[in-house]
Amino acid sequence: MANLGFIGLGLMGNPMCRNLIKGGHRLFVYDIEPQSMVPLTDMGATGCKTGREVLESTEAVFIIVPDTPDVDAVLFGPGGAAAKPAPGKVVVDMSSISPLDTKEFAARLAAQGIEMLDAPVSGGEVGAESGTLSIMVGGSAAVLARVRPYLDLMGKTITHIGDHGAGQTAKVANQIIVALNLEAICEALLFASKAGADPERVRRALMGGAANSRMLEIKGEWILSRRFQAGFRVKHQQKDLHNALDAARKLGLTLPNTAATQELYNAVSGDGGSDLDHSALILALERLANYKVT
Amino acid sequence: MANLGFIGLGLMGNPMCRNLIKGGHRLFVYDIEPQSMVPLTDMGATGCKTGREVLESTEAVFIIVPDTPDVDAVLFGPGGAAAKPAPGKVVVDMSSISPLDTKEFAARLAAQGIEMLDAPVSGGEVGAESGTLSIMVGGSAAVLARVRPYLDLMGKTITHIGDHGAGQTAKVANQIIVALNLEAICEALLFASKAGADPERVRRALMGGAANSRMLEIKGEWILSRRFQAGFRVKHQQKDLHNALDAARKLGLTLPNTAATQELYNAVSGDGGSDLDHSALILALERLANYKVT
Repeated sequence: MANLGFIGLGLMGNPMCRNLIKGGHRLFVYDIEPQSMVPLTDMGATGCKTGREVLESTEAVFIIVPDTPDVDAVLFGPGGAAAKPAPGKVVVDMSSISPLDTKEFAARLAAQGIEMLDAPVSGGEVGAESGTLSIMVGGSAAVLARVRPYLDLMGKTITHIGDHGAGQTAKVANQIIVALNLEAICEALLFASKAGADPERVRRALMGGAANSRMLEIKGEWILSRRFQAGFRVKHQQKDLHNALDAARKLGLTLPNTAATQELYNAVSGDGGSDLDHSALILALERLANYKVT
Repeated sequence: MANLGFIGLGLMGNPMCRNLIKGGHRLFVYDIEPQSMVPLTDMGATGCKTGREVLESTEAVFIIVPDTPDVDAVLFGPGGAAAKPAPGKVVVDMSSISPLDTKEFAARLAAQGIEMLDAPVSGGEVGAESGTLSIMVGGSAAVLARVRPYLDLMGKTITHIGDHGAGQTAKVANQIIVALNLEAICEALLFASKAGADPERVRRALMGGAANSRMLEIKGEWILSRRFQAGFRVKHQQKDLHNALDAARKLGLTLPNTAATQELYNAVSGDGGSDLDHSALILALERLANYKVT
């Protein structure tokens, strides 16, 4: 039984904390929304007033917040976990943020004597609830070994990708493919429908061959049944593609289809769709064609 | 045992003919390259001087030639199978060509009393050899029932998609997804590599989740091992994307990522890569970044 910290108690963080508590650990938690702490303090967790208080009370702090500036704030802002040196402590950032800023955060934490891992997850709220997240880790193997028992309570597959930032890099690569595969499916089903073929029959035929993908299996059906009200939100997909394009600009890479797909998401979002599932990408292509897939 | 015709005896047509002969049928064959007929006449097939001769000798004629103008020529050109009326005959076009022109060909054949199916295949030379092609069929169900025993000798999965052109539409949709999934993998692996992560570790981590696809499983490995010398050629991928973009223009559809991906293939082809595997798409992105995935 360890004293563990958790910062960021939203739709992902809350169930992840519950799995750590169920695993027998004592939790110290913090969120900028104090109400988010209540379900966890009801389970015996200690609510803290700052991230720093979390860090000082525990041997490892897990973070899952929305975006890069949020990680910056909870680490280095007022009351931030790493506002002062704290030799020997470990911070595990499970947010999905910029790989390049992650490398910088790791260096700044190292200067305070704090070890960092980047450990973004895939699997969504369902995976967080069931403790079956896929976790992609960047940082030192020795530090990963120290926190692995806790990650095992939250995830099913834990992959050490490489040095600081490599976990975020893998997550960005994952999100590039997810978005672009989805966009490919949208173009293909729109094409099939407009050319007069039944898109569901086409989808079924394609699932047997070289065009198959997890996205075609799962989200292809969502697109055709127009089930846009759940799942992975457009605004989160936009953030991930932004992290890809921002890093690509700094690295000197051309990612043409990532860029074009982000533009389509911007159109979906501009039409009020930012909280829809990312399969709502079809709406932008349909609007361009003034034609609805049927 | 039926008298069957086959026009187009290339890398696909030749093994498909052999499977029909092995199935006990008598073949009448034609190719603009007379030498292509030799392996089949050696097996007992009858070599013909024109496509028309093939049609007149048989109850169903299968065609597999490179592109739309080739189908036009073998049907309606000098000595073409459908140069004159031929009531009750069946033509099954297994080439991968324009869905819109296919509808027109079907109408012109109908005017000559000839039934047509479009029945493009996927599975490549390996599938043609082993008789395990996936065949996507457009046209009448009754006509499909008549030729189905012969298609069963060439393919494993035969899917009736819909009316004339629907088979070609499904094939184009398939090829849009194949090319765009491949492009997504290229962007993601290039990104991962340039950001300092090991691309093979990233690929393996991603195969466990939402980013997985047949292309990631198979061609992701080809990209990383730079195995560009075999498989599905860039020039054929370009033809398929051309059929998508040409039909999209006529139908009034915007296919942004299909268009951008075709441009990248044009760059690969322009650099002498038209006979490489379509995974050689990575070469264009690498050239833009002046960086090679390692």
